[in-house]
Amino acid sequence: MFPFEVHHNDPASHARTGKLITPHGPVRTPAFMPVGTCGSIKGVTPEQLGTTDTDIMLCNTYHLALRPTADVVAEFGGLHKFIGWKGPILTDSGGFQVFSLAQLNRIDDDGVEFKSHIDGAVLTLNPEQSIDIQNKLGADIIMAFDQCPPLPSTPEFVAEATDRTIRWARRGKDAHHSENQALFGIVQGGLDVDLRLRCLEAIVEIGFDGYALGGLSVGESFDEMSECLEGVAHKMPTDRPRYLMGVGMPRDLVSAVRSGIDMFDCVLPTRNGRNAYVFTPDGFLKMRNACHKLDESPLDEACDCYTCNNFSRGYIRHLFLAGEMLGPTLTSIHNIRFFQRLMNRIRELIPQGKIATIHDEYPVTRQSSKDE
Amino acid sequence: MFPFEVHHNDPASHARTGKLITPHGPVRTPAFMPVGTCGSIKGVTPEQLGTTDTDIMLCNTYHLALRPTADVVAEFGGLHKFIGWKGPILTDSGGFQVFSLAQLNRIDDDGVEFKSHIDGAVLTLNPEQSIDIQNKLGADIIMAFDQCPPLPSTPEFVAEATDRTIRWARRGKDAHHSENQALFGIVQGGLDVDLRLRCLEAIVEIGFDGYALGGLSVGESFDEMSECLEGVAHKMPTDRPRYLMGVGMPRDLVSAVRSGIDMFDCVLPTRNGRNAYVFTPDGFLKMRNACHKLDESPLDEACDCYTCNNFSRGYIRHLFLAGEMLGPTLTSIHNIRFFQRLMNRIRELIPQGKIATIHDEYPVTRQSSKDE
Repeated sequence: MFPFEVHHNDPASHARTGKLITPHGPVRTPAFMPVGTCGSIKGVTPEQLGTTDTDIMLCNTYHLALRPTADVVAEFGGLHKFIGWKGPILTDSGGFQVFSLAQLNRIDDDGVEFKSHIDGAVLTLNPEQSIDIQNKLGADIIMAFDQCPPLPSTPEFVAEATDRTIRWARRGKDAHHSENQALFGIVQGGLDVDLRLRCLEAIVEIGFDGYALGGLSVGESFDEMSECLEGVAHKMPTDRPRYLMGVGMPRDLVSAVRSGIDMFDCVLPTRNGRNAYVFTPDGFLKMRNACHKLDESPLDEACDCYTCNNFSRGYIRHLFLAGEMLGPTLTSIHNIRFFQRLMNRIRELIPQGKIATIHDEYPVTRQSSKDE
Repeated sequence: MFPFEVHHNDPASHARTGKLITPHGPVRTPAFMPVGTCGSIKGVTPEQLGTTDTDIMLCNTYHLALRPTADVVAEFGGLHKFIGWKGPILTDSGGFQVFSLAQLNRIDDDGVEFKSHIDGAVLTLNPEQSIDIQNKLGADIIMAFDQCPPLPSTPEFVAEATDRTIRWARRGKDAHHSENQALFGIVQGGLDVDLRLRCLEAIVEIGFDGYALGGLSVGESFDEMSECLEGVAHKMPTDRPRYLMGVGMPRDLVSAVRSGIDMFDCVLPTRNGRNAYVFTPDGFLKMRNACHKLDESPLDEACDCYTCNNFSRGYIRHLFLAGEMLGPTLTSIHNIRFFQRLMNRIRELIPQGKIATIHDEYPVTRQSSKDE
């Protein structure tokens, strides 16, 4: 089991700082993981990622299993060698993508049958296959296969998915034998705190190296997610990392940290970056807007990223209007660095008992994406 | 006038090495200029370009004049500051693009009227406007406005375009007053060596800081272009740089160097890179091909570029099949570095009197794109 140290607990909230030690290096928590869906952070080289102070990245099991396949990645000696990223990697279970991207043919207790979103090929995925694939991919942290219900769903459907997630977690644990890979269990239960806590209890009883909350940020409001986190996160084991999957906006990150979460992943820095959407402490910028045409200032005066050190808002706007690949690359580098600077500041403020002041330093953490 | 030194003349051919000193640094010749059409080498940051041993890059006047416009670039203090490239830059005259990309409404002795390929706006370009735009863009080397006839064209049409190019060159020279920018004249004349030499004589009489051959590599065969170069290049002034515009494949570069050319530009390293087409000393690779699926070797064992130092052929194939932006970025970095390694080797072999051996070291310099 990878060592995990909690360094500081915030007396005024459930926020905490710590460090998870993986075979490919330490992960300072609270941690944000950029997403390399197909084994590449879109538009960003591993070298550029290294300049953003990113400790750990995520890759998607579903995508890599379809292409190039786990066997091919294994031939190259695993993901780290294949993609050229020397730091820690986490792979998800494939569950979320199967339920959101693929066309589902059948779901039962064994697992799921689905059609590939690439070529329509009929494939199956179950708890043992997910672990086998993730063993071959060789990430430092892997996830138990879960059923992620969309929100809103009926209470019966959410309860059924939660029970199945528990049964699948047991099978995943039994199937996992690699000592170099930590296995995290996933807690489902929709927005029902009682159901979440019952699921948490069962998942903890099985016993994992870390615990994740899945099935959030899938359509519910900020208040609904925050309320659920407030009721659940701090009841997750204190001695293991707590991971909130697929989250999120700066506001979500701060709220979840204060509820006790240690780890996050999200495509927002890169997906939004590709759409000319830039994060700054004060809010969001849309780089296609005419107001940036003659603006010689960087995206963020306080930022130390490659983009902000070398390029103006006016040039970045030009790149997007001209359809140049460099535009998405520069905004993605900046956005990832923005998220890591935010996480770093969160890690600094928690030991000082000042996490609440993050909202003053980063007013964007009060905004939703609808506040643009 | 920027200093230009010829260091070595090959006794067995017209090949030569030298150095052109610009306000933004020296350019070792023979030199290859990657092309940043809209003010960005597609998919490559200036920092990455800096790792390829590139001395000078080219930007396209036509594209930048349309978007973001020369006035906007001037507001940012010129191209170097706008695009973040600290080394020398050359801008072309806009002539080639007006005649190849835009829809021409009218051409007469004053200049051309055309429709923008972006939004159909009706615009004009003439020798004085081209110089004015290039003065505002602020590149180290700028080009006189020329009429570039497509090949094949009738002898009458080529002769008319050549005469007009001479008249326009005189007007360009008269319009140019910036001492920080070298102005090169362009020699037209199609494949007719006598016409080329007559044009050269007239252009030299006007007097420029360097001399270029335009209107080649526009549809003619390798042998046709080589024959023309063989008859013309060595008759260009020996004390000024000789620039062959828009060329070319490795075979073309070596042939032209041996005819006496000092400078080249071409989109091939990046355009082909984006299409998964990779240059190596031994030939071409198509990275989508199944043969690369499990190949752990780099694109080129002998190459020292970022791509070859860190990534396998198998991973790069995966990136292209998955549609990841990183694929074009990695192949473009490699291809540019390949061209610069080739140019560097050419510059090493000329003083040794061994330029002919480049064909043994780089068998790809015997191949045409049809030999793949």
